[in-house]
This record gives sequence, structure tokens and C-alpha cells, in this order.
Amino acid sequence: MKELTIGIDIGGTNTKYGIVDKEGQVVFQGSISTAEYNEFKDYFKGLANAIRQAIQGLKGEHKILGIGVGAANGNYYKGTIERATNLKWKGIIPLADMLKEEFDIPAIITNDANAAAVGEMVYGAAKGMKDFVVITLGTGLGSGFVANGQLLNGKHGIAGEVGHTSVNPAGRYCNCGKRGCLETYVSATGIKRTVYKLLADHLEPSELRGIAFDNLNTKMITEAAIRGDVVALAAFEYTGRILGMKLAETVVHTDPEAIFLFGGLSLAGDLIFKPTIRHMEANLMPLFRGKVKVLPSGLQNQAAPILGASSLVWNYLDNTQQKQLQKIIA
Amino acid sequence: MKELTIGIDIGGTNTKYGIVDKEGQVVFQGSISTAEYNEFKDYFKGLANAIRQAIQGLKGEHKILGIGVGAANGNYYKGTIERATNLKWKGIIPLADMLKEEFDIPAIITNDANAAAVGEMVYGAAKGMKDFVVITLGTGLGSGFVANGQLLNGKHGIAGEVGHTSVNPAGRYCNCGKRGCLETYVSATGIKRTVYKLLADHLEPSELRGIAFDNLNTKMITEAAIRGDVVALAAFEYTGRILGMKLAETVVHTDPEAIFLFGGLSLAGDLIFKPTIRHMEANLMPLFRGKVKVLPSGLQNQAAPILGASSLVWNYLDNTQQKQLQKIIA
Repeated sequence: MKELTIGIDIGGTNTKYGIVDKEGQVVFQGSISTAEYNEFKDYFKGLANAIRQAIQGLKGEHKILGIGVGAANGNYYKGTIERATNLKWKGIIPLADMLKEEFDIPAIITNDANAAAVGEMVYGAAKGMKDFVVITLGTGLGSGFVANGQLLNGKHGIAGEVGHTSVNPAGRYCNCGKRGCLETYVSATGIKRTVYKLLADHLEPSELRGIAFDNLNTKMITEAAIRGDVVALAAFEYTGRILGMKLAETVVHTDPEAIFLFGGLSLAGDLIFKPTIRHMEANLMPLFRGKVKVLPSGLQNQAAPILGASSLVWNYLDNTQQKQLQKIIA
Repeated sequence: MKELTIGIDIGGTNTKYGIVDKEGQVVFQGSISTAEYNEFKDYFKGLANAIRQAIQGLKGEHKILGIGVGAANGNYYKGTIERATNLKWKGIIPLADMLKEEFDIPAIITNDANAAAVGEMVYGAAKGMKDFVVITLGTGLGSGFVANGQLLNGKHGIAGEVGHTSVNPAGRYCNCGKRGCLETYVSATGIKRTVYKLLADHLEPSELRGIAFDNLNTKMITEAAIRGDVVALAAFEYTGRILGMKLAETVVHTDPEAIFLFGGLSLAGDLIFKPTIRHMEANLMPLFRGKVKVLPSGLQNQAAPILGASSLVWNYLDNTQQKQLQKIIA
């Protein structure tokens, strides 16, 4: 009998879901719209139906062990999604309890960056590591920490908001209400803002002068940089410098074995890794230099968010078993 | 039969040692000079003799379960003291193995701030907490993290060097070789430097204008502030602002329940706590505001370093027992 888990990644536009085995093979995947459901109860009905159909379509003997969900502002302890700015449904949604009841199996929720960290540990490049960090570079900058082999959730289930550490208290406006947060500089949006800052400050010609802010994306900046566009190259150097400086601060907090970069900006390869590593090393206290690897995520593919979410179940089952053992012996 | 542990705190000038029960009662304490021993092997002989005498003097039936050592640059994984800048003996000293052999009981080493964190959890104000931070304010600024109920050691055993996060890359020179590290602003030495900066920049009269840098200490600055000295008051405000700003960064990393301040500067009470809390809250992203307590350590007494060191043994024995249980069942 094949043991399987379900992974659900709730984004503002679409919800991806998939069925995954212990080795990280996605045996089924699909998606439904998130944005078109104005009412959460309609969305939940649509999602539950889609998952039920997917399960019914599975061939061979199998057992579904649980459901993992990655979502912005997903709270691990409460099993809720709380006031996510990218979702229409406001308030506190008890999604884990609803999934548990609907499918009669364990359901675990966490934020998407924490799911990425567990995914990296279960299926990706952090297999066997006990202390590492995953930085997700999307619209914003998310982070997930593993310490002593366990996801670091913190007291309130909201650990790992490195995107909202400060680069400059009088700097760029951030969606969180503060100014100068790391994610306003280092993210898909951040590098766009940097390109526009550089175009404003400097006189150099650049192919990016012909592109409107709303049309510009990381891929265009990357391709321009590969073609030698000085503004695009400078934007990567600027982004890597700030990321490197701030990663040096993260390193002295938790002393990780490695930091994995995940998402669009990390696909630019050396353009982002080289300045990041150089400035991280330069800003570390000597005791830490040369010790911490900065690496691309091992889950750089379309299914990564589903893998991250499904990995929560394996991780949960492992932890639950250990707790039960301790109780029996105590 | 009374179960006891030994705690040793190795400072640059003196080494304190004590015998402690599970409730944190120090049943014996003593000290020997650290600085007067030029050779480590002579120091070790002196320390071992002193401890042996203390054990022989104990009344009633007892069992010594282990030895814990707190020392600058103590490495938990290797059981060594490595290149401590405050000690005469250079290189890597395998102190844990030497103590194990000498006394035939487990010996655990960690740095003094990590020992303080475990001490806070075992005997102090963090009893029952699973996620917290201890900040030690002495000559420098040390920090120890507990996450998921475990000391956060990191991959290389050097986690928790928050004293070397950056306040200003072009700021004050630090012993670590960098510039602008947090501990150059927030520590006994840091507030002295701030007083001198303020005396240089401003015209206000201050009783501190009559005191040479080498003679000035935290207690004098505190007493001047209590008497209403504006420079001393401004120095606390400046120190608390920087500490608060940087604690906001620490909070979004690990989401602690509380941050405990320990050591000389923390004894100034409201003078340091009020600006620290105000600026921490102002610099936190809204999601975290009002959630994290900043509190005085519960171990503010002479025996604190001994308690911290001895607590390592209880913590080690608990962890070892859990690991054995898991092995038996696996």
C-alpha cells in the first residue's frame, strides 16, 4: 500500500494542489482559482471537491496520511489563515479544522516560506541538514528556519519574517506599514524599484528605459543583465549587496549550515549569488567567515509549493510519533 | 541521596565554581584566579584540586551528576574553548574531555551567554518557556537563544552572536575586527563610549565631565542619571534606542515569548527598559507588536554564572534521556 500526502498551496490568484509520495514524486496535481471565489465557504467547497476527485482518480492501493497547506499568514499552532493581505476573505479562517473534518485525516498549515523550508528538508537540497534557512524571493521576501532539525515556529507561530528586518528606517515604503524593510529591496518587486532608482539617478543608456514599471519583471532584468546592460547589472549588484549584508545578521543569530535561495530572483544564478556571498562574507564577524554556504534551492520547479505543503505532513507525523514515544516512557 | 551538579564560570580574571542542586540552591561556591596561571595545565590542576576539596567538604549523602562550564568561545559540540580573546592560553583547549577524565562524570561546555539562557530556563524567569532569548550585558553583549525548548547551538556551535550584528557599518571600532557592531553601543563599554560621544557633541554641564574614561562605569552613569544628569539620561535613551531597534530584528527572526536582559546595564531598570521597549515596538512590523515581553533576568545575583553553568548538566541529562528512549523504540 502506497502512503501519500496532499499538498495545497494557496496563492492570491490560484490554489495549487497535488498528491505526493514520500520520495517527492507528485502523482497528481491540479489547480483551482482562488481569486474568483468571493466567499470562503464557496472556495472551500470547490477545493474539497477538486481534492476528492483527485483522490478518486488514484490507481493502485494507497493511503492518504494527511493534508499540508502553505499560505501567506498561515499559523501553524492555530491551524488558521489570519488576515492575509493577498486573499479576499478577511478575518481568521480555521482551515486546518475544516480540512480535518472534511477528510478525517490530520491537516497542518504554515506560511509558505516555512513550508518551503520543510520541503527543502524532506525532498530537497537540505536533506540531512539540521540547521539551515530558506529565503523565498517572490513578490516579497519570505524566510523559514530549521534549527536542531525542527521548524522554528516561535512562540506565536510567526517566526522567520526576515523580509521585515530593516535596511534603512527612512527607506522605501513597505506593505507592512514600515519603511526600509529588506523585502522592499530584495524581491521581484524590490529589484524593479532598484532599476527605477538607478534609471532616475544615473545617465547611462539602458534597454530598461523603454519599459514601464508595471510591465517590468525579474526575467527581463535578468536577460538585460546577461546582455551586458549596465543598469540591470548594477541592479543585481545593489540587490546582492543588501541581501548579503542582511544575511550576515541572520547568520550570527542562528549559525546555519546553509542558506537556500528560492524563487524567481534566485534563478538569475551568479548575477545574484556572487554579490550576495561576497557581501555576506565581508559583513560577517571573522568567527563565522567561510562557514555558511549560500545555495540554490533543490526544489526549483513548478511543483515546489505543493512539495513544500505536502512535506508538512511527513514532518508532522515524525514529530507526533516521537512525542508519543516520550509519553509512553515518561 | 541528593543529586548535585557542578557549575564553573571561567572569566578572564577569576574562575568561579559551585555545587548546585536541582532547585538552584548553591550548596557550595568558591573561586580561583584565572589570570595568574600562565600555563593551562597549571590552571587545570589548581581548578581540579579546588573542586575536589569542595566535593570532599559536602555533608550528607550525595551524587555529583556532571560538570557544566560557561566560558567565552566555549564550543558545545567540541567541548573546547577556542581562541578566547579574554584568556591567556591560546589555541584550542579540550576542557570537557579533561574534566570528564579527571572526575569520571559528563562535562558540558558552552559560551557564557548560552549558559545564561539555559540557567534562565532551568532556575530562572524562563521556567516553562520554550522560545526566548537572553541578552547578557557585560563588557560586551552576548546572547543565547532557546527555540522549541532547546538551546539553539547552530551548525558550528556558535549561534547567538547578536552583539555582532550591525548598527552602522561605518561606526565604532569593535574587538571582532568589524565596525559598528551592536556591542560597541550596547554594553558596559558601549554606554561609556556613548557618554563620551555626548560630552564631545554637546555643551550641557554634566557631573560625568569630571571622570576619566578609564574610571567611568555603568554604576556611575546610572547614579548620575537617577540624580537627573542630562548627559547620563541621554546616554540611556541612546543605548535603549539602539537596543530596541536591533531587538526588533531579533524578534522577527525567532518570534520569542520574552527577551531577558541580564547583567550590569540591565540593573538600571526603567532607565534602560523603557527606551528599549518603546523603540523595539516602534520598529516591529505590526504583526509582532505587543506580543514580546522584555524582562529582567530572574538570576540577577552573584551566583548567576555558576547557576548558568550548572544548569547545562540538568539540560544535558534530560536531552540524553530522551535520545536514549528514541533509540530503544526506533
